[in-house]
Amino acid sequence: MRLAELSARSGLPSATIKYYLREGLVPAGETEGSTWARYDESHVRRLRLVRALTEVAGLALEDVRRVVEALESAEPGHASRGAAQWPLSAPVAQEPSEVAVRRVDALLARRGWDLELDSPHRRTLAAALDTVDGLGLPATDEVLDAYAGAAESVAVVDVPRVLAEEDPLVAAERLVVGTLLYEPVLLTLRRMAHEVLSARPS
Amino acid sequence: MRLAELSARSGLPSATIKYYLREGLVPAGETEGSTWARYDESHVRRLRLVRALTEVAGLALEDVRRVVEALESAEPGHASRGAAQWPLSAPVAQEPSEVAVRRVDALLARRGWDLELDSPHRRTLAAALDTVDGLGLPATDEVLDAYAGAAESVAVVDVPRVLAEEDPLVAAERLVVGTLLYEPVLLTLRRMAHEVLSARPS
Repeated sequence: MRLAELSARSGLPSATIKYYLREGLVPAGETEGSTWARYDESHVRRLRLVRALTEVAGLALEDVRRVVEALESAEPGHASRGAAQWPLSAPVAQEPSEVAVRRVDALLARRGWDLELDSPHRRTLAAALDTVDGLGLPATDEVLDAYAGAAESVAVVDVPRVLAEEDPLVAAERLVVGTLLYEPVLLTLRRMAHEVLSARPS
Repeated sequence: MRLAELSARSGLPSATIKYYLREGLVPAGETEGSTWARYDESHVRRLRLVRALTEVAGLALEDVRRVVEALESAEPGHASRGAAQWPLSAPVAQEPSEVAVRRVDALLARRGWDLELDSPHRRTLAAALDTVDGLGLPATDEVLDAYAGAAESVAVVDVPRVLAEEDPLVAAERLVVGTLLYEPVLLTLRRMAHEVLSARPS
């Protein structure tokens, strides 16, 4: 298909697509003559992914690039599917405290979560714990266990859905996309639950 | 205290504090002579809140302003505590489909969640459902029920902690802050659970 159809199929203006092509977020089309290129379903799919990551997940283009590169370099296999999500983890602004790091380790041990030592989520979580502690809303072990239980109960539904994909790259992509795109669903439901529970007469 | 101490206590540079003062995100201090002003604990608290909303929750200053204004104008009472969270709900880019709106209504009915008709979370959730549907990862009722159950299980822990506050304005502030600041905790735990479950041999 030509650029105009790619634009219609992806819902993105041609100028935006050209920008993504220049930035390397989308692979170049097959050159046909000197003035136009031919695109296929893989381009439609990639553009929908980039659009979802920017518009829905609210990622900056630099983060979109990290996700796309991680997906392209992911090796087949279970571990790489998990690691494909690492670029989603925001860099921590401040090194977490020793106490917070140990609390994350203890939580992982309590849940039996065998998380890679290199996983950036460890530091991200520890830094988040430092923040809530510093603002007077500390995460007690009871709170952490409730949150981890909730997280696991949605992951149990999420993961089999994406791992049903035979192609490991497609599975990794669906895991990343599913992770990001269902975040607004989960967070909105939590806000709804807050509103409902805080309005109930106690 | 003077500006220098306010800076030390809040962890923000003086220039940033002056900017927030000009922008009205922090109330002015009490003027002492012509060249300096006196600040108190309420300023420390407000600056920590603004810092948390920008650095941790990643809100733009315009959204911080909406949250702060909602907190200042909130009336005492249960309903207003829930409604204080409304400004957190991102405006939806595209009007949700009728189908998605009805699915949200059905979910609320299944859960027995008596959510205000005006709550912006309804449209936010419906729009999120349209997005995941459009990207080939549709939210089945089974998925939605799992997510809503997880959301409720954390809200059950969250809400009593903030409602223990006697001052309704403080309670509203803690609800909003707790909502935003625990979001990274929940999302990081979900990513951890994804990584752990997708790496387990099936």
